[in-house]
Amino acid sequence: MKLLTAPMAERIVLEAAKPARAVLIELSECYGQVLAENIYADRDQPSTDRSAMDGIAISFSSWQKGTHNFRIEGIQKAGIAQKKLSKKDGCFEIMTGAVIPQGCDCVIPVEMVNIIKGRAIIKTDTKINRFQFIRKQGSEYKKGTLLLEEGTEIGPTHIAVAAAVGKDKVAVYSPKIAVIDTGDELVDVNKPIKLHQTRRSNAYALEALFHCHGFRAVTKFHLSDNILKLEANITWILANYDVIVLSGGVSIGKFDFVPQVLTKLNIKNLFHKVAQRPGRPLWFGVSQSGQTVFGLPGNPVSTIVCASRYVLPHLKKSCGFKNFTPLVKLAKSIKRNPRLTLLLPVSINTSREVRLVGYAGSGDYSALTESDGFVQIARGKGVLKKGTKVRFFKW
Amino acid sequence: MKLLTAPMAERIVLEAAKPARAVLIELSECYGQVLAENIYADRDQPSTDRSAMDGIAISFSSWQKGTHNFRIEGIQKAGIAQKKLSKKDGCFEIMTGAVIPQGCDCVIPVEMVNIIKGRAIIKTDTKINRFQFIRKQGSEYKKGTLLLEEGTEIGPTHIAVAAAVGKDKVAVYSPKIAVIDTGDELVDVNKPIKLHQTRRSNAYALEALFHCHGFRAVTKFHLSDNILKLEANITWILANYDVIVLSGGVSIGKFDFVPQVLTKLNIKNLFHKVAQRPGRPLWFGVSQSGQTVFGLPGNPVSTIVCASRYVLPHLKKSCGFKNFTPLVKLAKSIKRNPRLTLLLPVSINTSREVRLVGYAGSGDYSALTESDGFVQIARGKGVLKKGTKVRFFKW
Repeated sequence: MKLLTAPMAERIVLEAAKPARAVLIELSECYGQVLAENIYADRDQPSTDRSAMDGIAISFSSWQKGTHNFRIEGIQKAGIAQKKLSKKDGCFEIMTGAVIPQGCDCVIPVEMVNIIKGRAIIKTDTKINRFQFIRKQGSEYKKGTLLLEEGTEIGPTHIAVAAAVGKDKVAVYSPKIAVIDTGDELVDVNKPIKLHQTRRSNAYALEALFHCHGFRAVTKFHLSDNILKLEANITWILANYDVIVLSGGVSIGKFDFVPQVLTKLNIKNLFHKVAQRPGRPLWFGVSQSGQTVFGLPGNPVSTIVCASRYVLPHLKKSCGFKNFTPLVKLAKSIKRNPRLTLLLPVSINTSREVRLVGYAGSGDYSALTESDGFVQIARGKGVLKKGTKVRFFKW
Repeated sequence: MKLLTAPMAERIVLEAAKPARAVLIELSECYGQVLAENIYADRDQPSTDRSAMDGIAISFSSWQKGTHNFRIEGIQKAGIAQKKLSKKDGCFEIMTGAVIPQGCDCVIPVEMVNIIKGRAIIKTDTKINRFQFIRKQGSEYKKGTLLLEEGTEIGPTHIAVAAAVGKDKVAVYSPKIAVIDTGDELVDVNKPIKLHQTRRSNAYALEALFHCHGFRAVTKFHLSDNILKLEANITWILANYDVIVLSGGVSIGKFDFVPQVLTKLNIKNLFHKVAQRPGRPLWFGVSQSGQTVFGLPGNPVSTIVCASRYVLPHLKKSCGFKNFTPLVKLAKSIKRNPRLTLLLPVSINTSREVRLVGYAGSGDYSALTESDGFVQIARGKGVLKKGTKVRFFKW
């Protein structure tokens, strides 16, 4: 049987991405998420001519006419309304960020001035230009300018811009994600455990992976290996979630019911099995109402690698996120596999060189804690030499 | 006046870091934060000998004696207690992750077996070894092994490991951080604004920066330019927070009261002004009970650059976080400044080359939305050539 290639699987998964739902959230909570609206300037920036220094504000023409000694008419603090110069040889003390008083068109920094008995005397040899140390109204941007584009991954500078234009709530993309682990051997993390049981680490790994990449609307479910219960529960989950990520039950074991249950629920299977290691049994389909369903292999390394390689790009595409996969350099040569794309956990150093992190075939998570993500080695003959640049997927 | 150098300021800030307080939080919530405890294996992994495949479990000695046709005694599913082989030529159907039944020491994958009328017949030419496809008890790690070390930045793989050993709550470092913006010109993001006013974007930028780097216990305050109110409020904040980050009011303006108020409150000033651009007026001190206080310049670019360059490393050091500053390559030559360390916003490409992102001297945040962080250019003569590696600080 000829297996689907990893690039083909990626293409199918990306093509199935539909625009995600958006929710309105508090500005303080949106960091790391994907913006679901364009954000425009609500006014000019600066909103009026503002001082860029602490000092005095004068009329430049008075200076030109020879005035070097100005009577202080008052103080133009930041945050108070514009004052007005009443006499040509007057001045205002002014603070950084304050509005330029009416009648003034020049700011002289405090270091250039001696203040004596209500008068400001400009020091000799001070050079002055009209409009100096004035941030002109709209010089940074005009009202209506597009400042933040939909699809932006929101970081501190974006939040600051949203605050500056008065957005105390912003729309972010927030697909509702159901993470389902299957398997009768699994027990909850906070429950007593028997020797033959295993804790539900996959669901936590998947939830954390999605959280770390800005997808916060994640709910974890555990379903037992029972066809009728799987059917009933997945039916309910399909009615309430946008993206369904199952872990386990997709292989060829006697209790691997997931593919048959999904087929029965009219999830159209777009592929099952991919020419890659790990993650060969990967299952992917789309429901009649458009939800996407991933059946990830239950092996820990396969689960997190497949989620990072296929589910995350799918989610990001559905959010219009302008994603790029960074490149890294191999610290040592790597033998390729003629038939399979290899997805190999690596650690990365400050020079962006990567080294393989070994793990047992079974792939418990503890081996992966030394890794920062994985690299993709396209299938083919021979060896990729030390220094070759390859795609890197961060956990 | 000879200014303190940026490397000296960094050293002072790091030396002042005291161990941060820790809090216990839900495992699902700890992503991106810093682990405040060592986490050990609570049992062997695997906890018993487990099957690595779906197939049948047999006694290897029967095979050696020529048995190729085994009577199926039952099914050893994953998640059920160990069964026991009653006859030497018997076998169990077994699933991946299931306990190896007593009396069995070999797993034969399902692809190598024909199941007919309650019997499993091994296909001809199948090669078999004792212990094959068995994950031996403790082969991944033994009970008591240190799996996660205090000071680890928690990602998906760490959360999975914590789940696997039954930690539904984990201790994370969580210094209580007060972000205070000062200035009468500032208004809340959700309030109507007048032409001469400015929205509180700095507090949001700082909060988001700390959030993005795993510090979640951030509270924002706004204080007006009034000495008595500043004193009263900062006194209360000092009694309730560990790290105090002020923005604005540290320069030489008439209403820049922050340094004098801090001095009056017995905050020992360790430095004021650093030979760097931006961020020259940076103020740093320590209270008598050990809280650290940063007075950041109020200019937006200075605020976020100083927070990233000094406050974040200070917080990370106080959490025992094994931090490293990645190196990036300059895409173009950069002229150095003989007297000042330059902290220059840059964008980064997939090959980790960086380009400067221009901003007006006043530095509104909108210019920074194109940047990914900043690079540090040590003071000195001449030019740093294209391709030179420099330290990179991500927002």
